[in-house]
Amino acid sequence: MKSLVLGAIAALMISPPAQGEPTATGDLGLVIERANGSLLLIDQSERAALARIEGLGDLSHASLVWSPDERFAYVFGRDGGLTKVDIVTRQIAKRIVQAGNSIGGAISDDGRLVAVSNYEPGGVRVFDADTLDLVADIPTGSKTIGLVDAPGNRFVFTMWDMGETWIADMSGPQPAITKIPGMGINPYDALITSNGRTYITGLFGEDGMTALDLWADTPEPIHVLPGYGRGQKDMPVYKMPHLEGWALAGDEFVLPAVGHHEVLWIDARDFHETGRTRTHGQPVFAIARPDGRHVWVNFAHPLNDTIQVIDSVTKAVIHQFTPGPAVLHMEFTPRGHEVWVSVRDANKVMIYDTQTFEKLREIDAQSPSGIFFTARAHRIGL
Amino acid sequence: MKSLVLGAIAALMISPPAQGEPTATGDLGLVIERANGSLLLIDQSERAALARIEGLGDLSHASLVWSPDERFAYVFGRDGGLTKVDIVTRQIAKRIVQAGNSIGGAISDDGRLVAVSNYEPGGVRVFDADTLDLVADIPTGSKTIGLVDAPGNRFVFTMWDMGETWIADMSGPQPAITKIPGMGINPYDALITSNGRTYITGLFGEDGMTALDLWADTPEPIHVLPGYGRGQKDMPVYKMPHLEGWALAGDEFVLPAVGHHEVLWIDARDFHETGRTRTHGQPVFAIARPDGRHVWVNFAHPLNDTIQVIDSVTKAVIHQFTPGPAVLHMEFTPRGHEVWVSVRDANKVMIYDTQTFEKLREIDAQSPSGIFFTARAHRIGL
Repeated sequence: MKSLVLGAIAALMISPPAQGEPTATGDLGLVIERANGSLLLIDQSERAALARIEGLGDLSHASLVWSPDERFAYVFGRDGGLTKVDIVTRQIAKRIVQAGNSIGGAISDDGRLVAVSNYEPGGVRVFDADTLDLVADIPTGSKTIGLVDAPGNRFVFTMWDMGETWIADMSGPQPAITKIPGMGINPYDALITSNGRTYITGLFGEDGMTALDLWADTPEPIHVLPGYGRGQKDMPVYKMPHLEGWALAGDEFVLPAVGHHEVLWIDARDFHETGRTRTHGQPVFAIARPDGRHVWVNFAHPLNDTIQVIDSVTKAVIHQFTPGPAVLHMEFTPRGHEVWVSVRDANKVMIYDTQTFEKLREIDAQSPSGIFFTARAHRIGL
Repeated sequence: MKSLVLGAIAALMISPPAQGEPTATGDLGLVIERANGSLLLIDQSERAALARIEGLGDLSHASLVWSPDERFAYVFGRDGGLTKVDIVTRQIAKRIVQAGNSIGGAISDDGRLVAVSNYEPGGVRVFDADTLDLVADIPTGSKTIGLVDAPGNRFVFTMWDMGETWIADMSGPQPAITKIPGMGINPYDALITSNGRTYITGLFGEDGMTALDLWADTPEPIHVLPGYGRGQKDMPVYKMPHLEGWALAGDEFVLPAVGHHEVLWIDARDFHETGRTRTHGQPVFAIARPDGRHVWVNFAHPLNDTIQVIDSVTKAVIHQFTPGPAVLHMEFTPRGHEVWVSVRDANKVMIYDTQTFEKLREIDAQSPSGIFFTARAHRIGL
């Protein structure tokens, strides 16, 4: 069975879709195959792999965003590569190496601009989404992290070295930059809420986190959970959690705690802590099912073979299972009926029913990490 | 210029896309042309009409939902027609007349079932999304309104005659029905919040509204705003507002008031009233921009040439303009940078920048009403 599936994938690698075959793109997605610099094109409805696209360079810590028409993926590689992939023709449309060491990217709300944040040289570069021509170069003098899109053709990003957040408004001929100092010591990652209003940075150099209300005329840093953070230095941190894993579940955010075996619950209005749930290991992602009723959590090495599911009303773990070695990512279908899970060292993407927890299918993949469905094209901050 | 545009549309009507031409569907949409029983296929990125699809029967009060792959639209006509439209081949894939008088429909979270609510005979019929074969017939003995999808392969709908809401769980071989009496006198419409948790019915026969928490083990009717409603019977109601127009703006719902020149603001957690904003006329739709910062409102006849934009922080009207005669619907692009407006008696769809309010384009359309972008495929309750 395994060889049959692999054979089918191999055949698909070299065959673009038949001429004239219509392609609707709403239920497709890409899986990052980190070891080989390739992407696996997947079909949600068919629960199948359709094709492999190769030649994307170093994808060891990669992510991607989608064009508004769900045709093109912009893939951000750790090596500074920016690759535009056409999932209709199943080919690389264009590829540039735009910096020496990049950390992530975003696409503007109108789909016309793609921005990349870089460690080396530190800053943000903005490209035309159509041609990948450079539109704006914004040096920051710092490693630059937490780059997200915000409504109004804006990008928001943060400086590791000096703890400043910048808002770049790209609606005019030149970027208009607003600088917000005092975000804290060594912000290491950030997120924007799904309505584009609140931007939150995690801090490596001090306790707590920092939030910004982007609806304010002059956004000011708001210190959140000042008594909590990575300050308990006696706990080794195996992996810094991903803040994109923050999730709104009901009226609360769920946050993977740094260096602790727990997730934190925080009131979405005033950021006060509303509870903690003890977990199997150090959480990496805590992701709410799209309806917010359940939160799925995976864990850092060496406990990364396990997933726990937490009920957001009772805050209790209601299900635990071991998909296999190195569970790296979980992606829900847009209305939440299934979840697709990357199990890197099993070389599988596994698909589960989110109501019954039944495993529905396994798909072969080579060292899979991030899974990105096209529906992300329509979300702020993804 | 006008005749050129019409000429282009006429040509497209008879030409499917060229063989081998790829079609990504993420930025497409359909406009209901109510007078002629036709649909206009539109392209968000190109700000253009691509084709007209005809033969859909009576579309005088029609709506539609999208398949998860964003290829097929299921169109619910007032005449009981259920039409499956393929926007890739630009043709009707299948059409049935499933009842004498229908009021709307929904698609299950897994995309496999399409449900239609009917006045005559009263009830809900559920069809296979692929074949349109009847899967389940759920007679209710009442005009049936407010049909929505909910997570877990469920449909929720409400009986006008006896004020009951039913939850039909379609995950087993037969529908499992939960009946909730006491929803109030003559519910006329309903909505579900975007996380699928809260279902709210508007009442025609008494003051206030009724909410259900679908996360409760046994959902019980919650009476909302008991002192408010259509009770002030001296005000003529020109048109009952659409409850699908409810919008979450920040932490509040915005509700078009019935029979009054105002919108109501309601706390999203406990449903208490937080404010009212005086408006130009009786609101029909009050729709939040996807980021929730602005709410766009249109109005009932005879004041239906106007749109007002309300800031959700100050609750003040910040912009007012008159697109033209009979503004029937407004649809935002998924991340909110543009809004598309149907101006029925101008025979135009008008496109506006939501930040500057500048008009960007007009597209010819025949008596346009509802506008439905494919991104709705990925939302609960749309």
